Amino acid sequence: MIKVGIVGASGYTGVELIRILSLHPEVDIVGITSNNHEGREYSDLYPSLKGYINLRFDELCEAEIIRKSDVIFSALPNGHAYGLANEVVAKNKKLIDLSADFRFNDFSVYEKWYGPVPLIDQKVKRIYGLPEIHRMEMKDVNVVANPGCYPTSVILGLAPGLRYGLIKTEGIIIDSKSGVSGAGHKPSFANLYAECNESVKAYGVACHRHTPEIEQELSYLSESNIKVTFTPHLVPMTRGILSTIYCELRDGITLYIVREAFEEFYSNESFVKILDDGQFPRTKDTYGSNNCHIGLAYDEHTGKLIIVSAIDNLVKGASGQAVQNMNNLFGLPEDTGLNLPAIYP
Amino acid sequence: MIKVGIVGASGYTGVELIRILSLHPEVDIVGITSNNHEGREYSDLYPSLKGYINLRFDELCEAEIIRKSDVIFSALPNGHAYGLANEVVAKNKKLIDLSADFRFNDFSVYEKWYGPVPLIDQKVKRIYGLPEIHRMEMKDVNVVANPGCYPTSVILGLAPGLRYGLIKTEGIIIDSKSGVSGAGHKPSFANLYAECNESVKAYGVACHRHTPEIEQELSYLSESNIKVTFTPHLVPMTRGILSTIYCELRDGITLYIVREAFEEFYSNESFVKILDDGQFPRTKDTYGSNNCHIGLAYDEHTGKLIIVSAIDNLVKGASGQAVQNMNNLFGLPEDTGLNLPAIYP
Amino acid sequence: MIKVGIVGASGYTGVELIRILSLHPEVDIVGITSNNHEGREYSDLYPSLKGYINLRFDELCEAEIIRKSDVIFSALPNGHAYGLANEVVAKNKKLIDLSADFRFNDFSVYEKWYGPVPLIDQKVKRIYGLPEIHRMEMKDVNVVANPGCYPTSVILGLAPGLRYGLIKTEGIIIDSKSGVSGAGHKPSFANLYAECNESVKAYGVACHRHTPEIEQELSYLSESNIKVTFTPHLVPMTRGILSTIYCELRDGITLYIVREAFEEFYSNESFVKILDDGQFPRTKDTYGSNNCHIGLAYDEHTGKLIIVSAIDNLVKGASGQAVQNMNNLFGLPEDTGLNLPAIYP
Amino acid sequence: MIKVGIVGASGYTGVELIRILSLHPEVDIVGITSNNHEGREYSDLYPSLKGYINLRFDELCEAEIIRKSDVIFSALPNGHAYGLANEVVAKNKKLIDLSADFRFNDFSVYEKWYGPVPLIDQKVKRIYGLPEIHRMEMKDVNVVANPGCYPTSVILGLAPGLRYGLIKTEGIIIDSKSGVSGAGHKPSFANLYAECNESVKAYGVACHRHTPEIEQELSYLSESNIKVTFTPHLVPMTRGILSTIYCELRDGITLYIVREAFEEFYSNESFVKILDDGQFPRTKDTYGSNNCHIGLAYDEHTGKLIIVSAIDNLVKGASGQAVQNMNNLFGLPEDTGLNLPAIYP
Repeated sequence: MIKVGIVGASGYTGVELIRILSLHPEVDIVGITSNNHEGREYSDLYPSLKGYINLRFDELCEAEIIRKSDVIFSALPNGHAYGLANEVVAKNKKLIDLSADFRFNDFSVYEKWYGPVPLIDQKVKRIYGLPEIHRMEMKDVNVVANPGCYPTSVILGLAPGLRYGLIKTEGIIIDSKSGVSGAGHKPSFANLYAECNESVKAYGVACHRHTPEIEQELSYLSESNIKVTFTPHLVPMTRGILSTIYCELRDGITLYIVREAFEEFYSNESFVKILDDGQFPRTKDTYGSNNCHIGLAYDEHTGKLIIVSAIDNLVKGASGQAVQNMNNLFGLPEDTGLNLPAIYP
Repeated sequence: MIKVGIVGASGYTGVELIRILSLHPEVDIVGITSNNHEGREYSDLYPSLKGYINLRFDELCEAEIIRKSDVIFSALPNGHAYGLANEVVAKNKKLIDLSADFRFNDFSVYEKWYGPVPLIDQKVKRIYGLPEIHRMEMKDVNVVANPGCYPTSVILGLAPGLRYGLIKTEGIIIDSKSGVSGAGHKPSFANLYAECNESVKAYGVACHRHTPEIEQELSYLSESNIKVTFTPHLVPMTRGILSTIYCELRDGITLYIVREAFEEFYSNESFVKILDDGQFPRTKDTYGSNNCHIGLAYDEHTGKLIIVSAIDNLVKGASGQAVQNMNNLFGLPEDTGLNLPAIYP
Repeated sequence: MIKVGIVGASGYTGVELIRILSLHPEVDIVGITSNNHEGREYSDLYPSLKGYINLRFDELCEAEIIRKSDVIFSALPNGHAYGLANEVVAKNKKLIDLSADFRFNDFSVYEKWYGPVPLIDQKVKRIYGLPEIHRMEMKDVNVVANPGCYPTSVILGLAPGLRYGLIKTEGIIIDSKSGVSGAGHKPSFANLYAECNESVKAYGVACHRHTPEIEQELSYLSESNIKVTFTPHLVPMTRGILSTIYCELRDGITLYIVREAFEEFYSNESFVKILDDGQFPRTKDTYGSNNCHIGLAYDEHTGKLIIVSAIDNLVKGASGQAVQNMNNLFGLPEDTGLNLPAIYP
Repeated sequence: MIKVGIVGASGYTGVELIRILSLHPEVDIVGITSNNHEGREYSDLYPSLKGYINLRFDELCEAEIIRKSDVIFSALPNGHAYGLANEVVAKNKKLIDLSADFRFNDFSVYEKWYGPVPLIDQKVKRIYGLPEIHRMEMKDVNVVANPGCYPTSVILGLAPGLRYGLIKTEGIIIDSKSGVSGAGHKPSFANLYAECNESVKAYGVACHRHTPEIEQELSYLSESNIKVTFTPHLVPMTRGILSTIYCELRDGITLYIVREAFEEFYSNESFVKILDDGQFPRTKDTYGSNNCHIGLAYDEHTGKLIIVSAIDNLVKGASGQAVQNMNNLFGLPEDTGLNLPAIYP
């Protein structure tokens, strides 16, 4: 059994992580922490887990929880995982971090968009934890940076086309629509029910900090320097991200070739499903699952390729992917404990 | 492995049944039928199951699917299970029927509320399939009438109080609130998104046909003739039923005694959770799970006991309970394949 | 033109008040205040009013805004209107208070449920501002206590039956369902979109402070001492309250008599509509309007009368009713500026 | 008073039209028809209008309703307005048609996307009824083609940039998000509450028939032949359209120039509001109003201009705009009866 500790477990990614891990046949949760809930029963905070988990928020210091665990999941806010990583690695354990702290190959990008980066231990070997892209490199790392929710939906939608050189690297436009749980469980005016219900809006237009994360990975895939236009939107639902991606085919490439490439690229993947011609994904079909559904269309009269991808932002976009990464780190089949279909309707 | 056939699998209880059975370790789905979808891939109708199930709607006659199965689940509309039951029993198989056909001890009640009842084979031994109440009698039956969604939430909320004689049998009032999936997936004006969203209404006031079903079981529990006032409401959500029940304590009974009785009555149950003093259930905490959450309060200034119970109408209120019944029929632990926590948020 | 000042205008009742007053032909808004938004353009806070209102949050002290106004609307939290009332009345102006401060005939009830009451000027003449009940007494007052949202829906639903002595005064049970805007626009965990969406819950069970307000008015109507069981619920919608009321008919009274009485009682009312036999209200049919829709049913097999009433909690349950009260105070036709149908769907 | 007849009044654009016209000071509704509801009280079908309108669906033939009216609004499905137009024009009346029948300058475009066009009377003088663009040409017509909901949001968002030659005419990408009421009130599986709630999807990808309508008007504005990529999405809300538009600035054009141009272009318009720098529209801020809110941003790192526009699909996207057109036809101030702010929250 893998001994798991969770730091910062009181948020939505925390409760989703615990739901998924409570079903995982090879995991033992040995401790959870949260700044504001010490001593409290977890199922008191989240009654959905009543009867499934018998955990109390620890009063332990982090050192103690690291000592007891094989792997630490951190769902702390951005900027808190650096110190944690140093400690975890010093004790020869593993860290899966759900914040942005370790997502950038170049820490100066993090500093530009998020804030200062402290000194990081030389022993830290990090990777961007999108297994469909970086699975092979995961064996040797001790810190996995779990990807952002928007980037997951976007990178999976563009990876085959860029890796195989089928689409142009300029002029890619990404229009994403997210449910409100992506904003977390911290009370704010903008996330009140009465503010979000029966409304759609764009936000972070031309300045959302998932943009550099998307660009880093698309550039890696295409071996070029990719810039994208990325506009996130908030829609009135709890879970789900739908990304609609507009790009152009290279000369001589057809939709048929693109479809073949997508099917080939994801042929051994458990969680990515390419929909049939004429079918487009609904976020609801991924609700509560680790799946990503992708649909493809070619607009003949303007020459644009349109890629639509759907995920559950809290599963494949956060906690499910974190467990997928854990499975990889520990040599388990990647879908262990994750093979649950979406709940419909 | 239990060989399962599903008749009438194209509706919401059908897709929920298949989701749950696809996770069940002891089940093999050998055939599914539906009048309107013969030959169609199931995951084409419900893409949420893409990659989880490889089933086509059969063109088989019912006789054939019965022959191949150990147990038949019927999700056909009311009135269709009678003929099916005769055939199933003749072949020495089991039937779990999700319609109202076999719910009434007295078929004349069915006739009054639903319509004519044809001749039923003498070999049919039926039971009302609420395992928390009738588990012991299930061993010898070949037809299980799966309870209605509202009755499940109500009977579980009242059973301990009536069985132990703690509450008065007169004047019980039940105010239930249901999500829209309870109305099924058949297009109708009343169930359109734009009609249901941002609206609450009562319906079937003083004449809903779940009333006699509730009364039959409450009368059984209390060994008296109980009449209830039952008002269902439609609320803008997909899943969930919350029933708020108003009744009176017998002389000398306190909330403390009631709480002890509820905890005792359900102490060995996997799926019924009594919430702590001052806590009341949210349907969201049961979403996608087979659980029933129950909260209790006593209004001192009017002397009323208030019981609030929450379930997912498609799981404990339909398909999850059907699988729980199947586990019973085949001697499996009752929670086999059903031990999934709710998805939150 | 009536000169109107609004104190505490930044919340949901504030924006609804300003929307309604912006359409009122006899009103001039001369000033608005809010603790946190001094100097800010109102339509900057609420862009829905961009182009309709040209108001800035004043830095005025309250004395100044009272001086400029004929009538003050206060949408401040409970406990803040006492001092305001003394000042308003001293200057011979009128106050319409949307908080609970002046709702109770007996201030000791306020103290029990809300908190301490300071000294109130003798010149303050208050009334409970439900015009359908207290219209005649409004002429001589200078302070109108605008009713709570739940009490409005409940009292309108019970008034004819109690006033005419058609229903029993014991054992009345009220099960209310409210949209989330009733909780205001102050950020809290419980009112986040992800917490409220796709969920129904009861709250304040057996202890909600609208209970004494309801009881005061029902007792007044029936000239007896009425106690009720009142359970509010939160449902996933922005606006609307549906109250389902259970009571018993006096001997010899029939549903026909009750219906006649309701139609008679409300025959001259602009805003209360009695639905036809077999029809029940939907909150959506009152959305954005000052209307109250009422449906009636008799459950023959248990002898209960079931009354269902629907309002928009922010209009008839708050700001619309406040304007209705203003019209009364100033001798205008009661529906001036309020004669807007609901928006459907 | 303008005598108004409404043909095909039973749908959502019908009820919205009647709500708006019931508030219009210069209108008398003289007759309404619908195939399926003859003889029925209108407020029986739509109780939201109970007390506001005293109309029964006529059994009149169309000829009779045309005879009694000055202007006919047709909310019939596509293909039904041609015959109607011939009759209306023969009797020297006016027709405002909410279908696609008269939207195209070139009827062969209609035939390609919708179906055959019968013979049209020579006396029919039609115009595309987007008043902000074609107001001046409306004086001499007798048939107004009311624009589609998506095209209204898109054309208003692009008009100043194209008219003033600020943006490039190639490569325009439009990503629109619509509430479900746009699909009408005809029951269908895809529009059920349980199908739409908690889900986002793209539909009509690369083949939606609002594309040629958008292209016709953009081409007119830019005096060039414009092709656009247009992808509509369905989001879980009743009303509202948000269109996010991606395009490129011509050389030397800055966001500042664009903003000035938008403010200039719409400076005399009642219903189009340009939001301040850094502000982006929410559909909720237009709910129930005839307004269009527009936000602008420039993505410096990719050189894209991003325009976001929001409307209520049933008001500015349908019935409100139809009344705006009627005001124009009859020489009334354009905002007569339409000057209602959005309902918020």
